[in-house]
Amino acid sequence: MVEITRRSALAGALINIASVPYTQAMAFAPQAGQQAPAYYRYKLGEIEITTVNDGVGALPIDDGFILNVPKDQVNAYLRSIFMEPNIYSGPYNPVLINNGKQLALLDTGQGEANLTTSKGLNGRLLQNLKAAGVDPKDIDLVILTHYHGDHINGLLRADNSLAFPNAEILVPEMEDKFWMDDGNMGRAATPRMEFNFKNIRRVMTKDVRTRLRPYQWNKEVMSGVSSVATIGHTPGHTSFNVTSGDKSLFMQGDVTHAPFLFARNPGWHLFLDVDPVAAEATRRKVYDMLASERMMVQGFHYPFPAIGHVEKTASGYREILVQWSPVL
Amino acid sequence: MVEITRRSALAGALINIASVPYTQAMAFAPQAGQQAPAYYRYKLGEIEITTVNDGVGALPIDDGFILNVPKDQVNAYLRSIFMEPNIYSGPYNPVLINNGKQLALLDTGQGEANLTTSKGLNGRLLQNLKAAGVDPKDIDLVILTHYHGDHINGLLRADNSLAFPNAEILVPEMEDKFWMDDGNMGRAATPRMEFNFKNIRRVMTKDVRTRLRPYQWNKEVMSGVSSVATIGHTPGHTSFNVTSGDKSLFMQGDVTHAPFLFARNPGWHLFLDVDPVAAEATRRKVYDMLASERMMVQGFHYPFPAIGHVEKTASGYREILVQWSPVL
Repeated sequence: MVEITRRSALAGALINIASVPYTQAMAFAPQAGQQAPAYYRYKLGEIEITTVNDGVGALPIDDGFILNVPKDQVNAYLRSIFMEPNIYSGPYNPVLINNGKQLALLDTGQGEANLTTSKGLNGRLLQNLKAAGVDPKDIDLVILTHYHGDHINGLLRADNSLAFPNAEILVPEMEDKFWMDDGNMGRAATPRMEFNFKNIRRVMTKDVRTRLRPYQWNKEVMSGVSSVATIGHTPGHTSFNVTSGDKSLFMQGDVTHAPFLFARNPGWHLFLDVDPVAAEATRRKVYDMLASERMMVQGFHYPFPAIGHVEKTASGYREILVQWSPVL
Repeated sequence: MVEITRRSALAGALINIASVPYTQAMAFAPQAGQQAPAYYRYKLGEIEITTVNDGVGALPIDDGFILNVPKDQVNAYLRSIFMEPNIYSGPYNPVLINNGKQLALLDTGQGEANLTTSKGLNGRLLQNLKAAGVDPKDIDLVILTHYHGDHINGLLRADNSLAFPNAEILVPEMEDKFWMDDGNMGRAATPRMEFNFKNIRRVMTKDVRTRLRPYQWNKEVMSGVSSVATIGHTPGHTSFNVTSGDKSLFMQGDVTHAPFLFARNPGWHLFLDVDPVAAEATRRKVYDMLASERMMVQGFHYPFPAIGHVEKTASGYREILVQWSPVL
């Protein structure tokens, strides 16, 4: 070993450096092969909010995916924003809201059973809750924005038991009325609608319905969290104003699906919208408000960590995600 | 307890729901008060790459922060992108590169000692490495892009011992020559330059210099990782082409500091640039290449997870971060 004195080191004795023999470390770490857990916390006044990612979906993009836009145009747009064509990678982001008195979970993701069928793409909520140090038994309220499967399937474990056994389940009254009505089910006009009616009946076990409490619009469902009608995506689709002190935030649910598609192109009609025209009207109204009031928004289908702001553009709106903060 | 039969549940017996008494859960979970660990993995061909966040800096924005733009204009711009004025929140993102044979760490963050002085804002690398399951002893190579403190301070623990005791430390030959030259130190024209010369001598302990190996440009420093001269920010500033099979990626180091400022406004001259004019020329050349070749880029000062693509805009460039993927 060549001796490098502190003095020569401080002087930057480059002549010595190259001649120092290097001893290869014995250990070599194998590749990890696993993604990090995905949760993210922030404070809104006195309320602690945690985005808990459930993964992403992977829907094929065909000519019916956007009702009023051909597949080729959708794919060209996806390429322009550096995303894969032909597949819609839609993120799922349930949210914990802890107001210091109650711990609520807003929407539940695709459910534990999907973890296997999706090969880990989604159904990750319970894993990520565990990483976040949250016991599902400690959740006091599950609040649902609407009854699509990616929002309600996670109410059940893989064995159909309750995922949140001590939680009251708050549901939009109009949403429950619409989907649980057998007459409406009989009038389902598309296979997708039929699938939704059946899936909702699968998830709405006796155990689930025993814990249901319907809520109305413009009501406080927990301290600091108030329901807002944002219909179109579904007949009872609901968003939430969250406020604490002088801080406020809009939890939009599915006012847009992924914003990189539907905020940027607010006129695009997603096949999942029950009433696409009403959904577009709601979207424009909400996004005009978000942009003009410079309001923070949390979106279930926003890319993790699913929080940002919205600016108006020539052709629609653009979401601007927050920068990861290492402290709350 | 009102009995709800499966049949009535399936039929959506709303009339019963409201009358079910709700038993308040006994447990209540306190707020967590802590951010999630911040690391993110992805594959580039056969190479596994992990962004390991060190936190963010917090530099005051005064009229000297951007040399050629007044403070008020910088603050107006920050507000327009929904960021706080008066403070530059610059993220720090060291990167692990595991090519299946060696595990390398690219740049080291602000160092463990800063964890206390910054109140947790930065100096988080060792914590986040631990969360990622990586033992600092298993790191074979530390590769430095340049000698600014936020890239080299993490070579040392709080007690000045080596943070990565088994790693060879690969440094740009030109960078080492410039900063270790006492004549250059004597010619330091600004307090910032003087500070840098002194800080580098503080970090370059005998233990560090014993493990140094200078590398030249256009050389493979580990299998799949090649050095590229990108000078201006510092005289020896270096970026890396990372390739595996038909996949490639540009690790830009500080070609831009935070892209929301310096990719969007490539003509802005940061006071930290040793040669701002050369830095701008390098920035425009690299970003023209990234945009025209649609190349993935990883940036030390990009917001976590610090990977994205670049598009050209009317006034400069815009970074488009990747969407969080739950699988590799």
